[in-house]
Amino acid sequence: MELFTREVFFVKRPVGMVQEDSFRMKTRKLPTLDAGDILIRVRYLSVDPYMRGRMNLGRSYAPPFDLGSVMVGGGVGTVEQSRNPNVKTGDWVVGQLPWSDYCVTQGSGVRVLDDSLPPTTALHVLGITGLTAYFGLLQVGQAKSGDVVVISGAAGAVGCQVGQIAKIIGCKVVGIAGSDAKTKWLKDTYGFDGTINYKAQDFSDQLDENLPTGIDVYFDNVGGNVSDAVVSYLNDFSRIAICGQISLYNATTVEMGPRTLLPLLLARRVTARGFIVSDFAPQFGEALKQLKQWYQAGQLRMQEDVVEGLQNTPHALIRLFRGENVGKQLVRLP
Amino acid sequence: MELFTREVFFVKRPVGMVQEDSFRMKTRKLPTLDAGDILIRVRYLSVDPYMRGRMNLGRSYAPPFDLGSVMVGGGVGTVEQSRNPNVKTGDWVVGQLPWSDYCVTQGSGVRVLDDSLPPTTALHVLGITGLTAYFGLLQVGQAKSGDVVVISGAAGAVGCQVGQIAKIIGCKVVGIAGSDAKTKWLKDTYGFDGTINYKAQDFSDQLDENLPTGIDVYFDNVGGNVSDAVVSYLNDFSRIAICGQISLYNATTVEMGPRTLLPLLLARRVTARGFIVSDFAPQFGEALKQLKQWYQAGQLRMQEDVVEGLQNTPHALIRLFRGENVGKQLVRLP
Repeated sequence: MELFTREVFFVKRPVGMVQEDSFRMKTRKLPTLDAGDILIRVRYLSVDPYMRGRMNLGRSYAPPFDLGSVMVGGGVGTVEQSRNPNVKTGDWVVGQLPWSDYCVTQGSGVRVLDDSLPPTTALHVLGITGLTAYFGLLQVGQAKSGDVVVISGAAGAVGCQVGQIAKIIGCKVVGIAGSDAKTKWLKDTYGFDGTINYKAQDFSDQLDENLPTGIDVYFDNVGGNVSDAVVSYLNDFSRIAICGQISLYNATTVEMGPRTLLPLLLARRVTARGFIVSDFAPQFGEALKQLKQWYQAGQLRMQEDVVEGLQNTPHALIRLFRGENVGKQLVRLP
Repeated sequence: MELFTREVFFVKRPVGMVQEDSFRMKTRKLPTLDAGDILIRVRYLSVDPYMRGRMNLGRSYAPPFDLGSVMVGGGVGTVEQSRNPNVKTGDWVVGQLPWSDYCVTQGSGVRVLDDSLPPTTALHVLGITGLTAYFGLLQVGQAKSGDVVVISGAAGAVGCQVGQIAKIIGCKVVGIAGSDAKTKWLKDTYGFDGTINYKAQDFSDQLDENLPTGIDVYFDNVGGNVSDAVVSYLNDFSRIAICGQISLYNATTVEMGPRTLLPLLLARRVTARGFIVSDFAPQFGEALKQLKQWYQAGQLRMQEDVVEGLQNTPHALIRLFRGENVGKQLVRLP
């Protein structure tokens, strides 16, 4: 039986805000399976802010996407056919998958999922999202019980995960997000101790009110103006875990900001550290065990924000930069 | 016998560059000694960039100087009279001393010097300067053999000390300073592997030429434009030890600069950490032992830049911010 798949190609490097014209969908016939191959039906794709960096040429932590190549990212799928002894038909798998309906792969980099857990958890709570929050908060941020933890981009996938882990270990958690709906959701859903809407007129007053004893750990997903305002609340010997800088990813020129960070790091003896979750790969096993335990105990949850259809994957990605997602942005391929 | 002393008072908080009109000298009669008192003749005073911060009101790591009080800083002196059993006439002592010819003190915070060493070493190589370099480079910067260490303000007291320690432990050392005379001096006197004049037209080319393999440790005394340029050479997993930000200390408004630091710390997983030497006080003894050993072996030296006369102490301080000093700025009281 001949099988066709749609694939989303990366066809134009964006200048400024990423637009749908950076992508084009085409259909092709899938090859037949060679020995060792598996055929995966892609079921969910994860879109993540780091992808914007890969759309630029130039030095970043992940290599640039090649123009004319099929987009790729985290995804889960089901095995439809297998000529690989390690994987059987019906298995759910997770890995770096193409933005496509189907793909044929030798299975390297693809991991069979534990079928006792909802498969999409491998894309958030028990995947890169959860691991990013875990290592960023605990190892980079050195958060400990009693600390005041402030999170920018708190209603994003990583942000709301950081907040939950911080609560579990006994921190006071204050989340910053871009709408009253998001801040309400953070309080109601995850029990954040305080929230701040950075787009509100009284942003500065909200910071004052929520941070009477300063900040011990600032988990930064956003950068820019938000961070400029936040850092003045840092306590002596506090830490900044730099996880993302989403406010700057679509900038076309170098933005200017006040030169306040370095003097402040000095005066308050702050440690600011950038990190990428893959640097912690040797410790993933141990961390996933802990995350799974918290998940199964009901202490770690994730709201999924689901867009339907492969053709809407570019739109789902763009939602991240518009701040439209609440929780983990996924694309479901029906 | 009645004894008089001149004293330099802090009389006006500077706005912008510190000027001599922030200080006023007056003469007063010294009190007679009570039990436990010692009379110190001040012989050398240390002036240091951090003093500028103490002249402002507002939050810094050291409390603000009070208007109308006598200026105080590191100094060495000789004991002229003693009614304190722990100190005898003729001893050299080091401590926080007033900007004055003489002072009477109970001796708390004053330490008797080992008379086998030149007393001014207690103000630099074997004092706060040396300790700042030591802990900043080794503990904050985590420098190790083979690292490329870049130092801004390299011809300042801490800077040239950092360079020497980095050479001792096997680093490649590149110093940034503000004149060709200074950069030549760093190469000729301390054997820096490379030097860069940040005021030169070809600053950017000099960075390229001197940093073909990037930077592993950036020891920053300066901040501002210099740091903006330097950080783009940081390697993955490199460290910034933030020791000073002298380019900003006399600013009257918040300077603006490119928002490049946080995204770069993220992409290259850099750790930037501010520090103040006093945070390492519990380890001073051990560090001084090592510094003394290097000093006695001729591996650590310090050029003293000496201004004569108590009345010129404000001028000596101002020289720091004009970049006029080469090596450790001292004031000798003849």
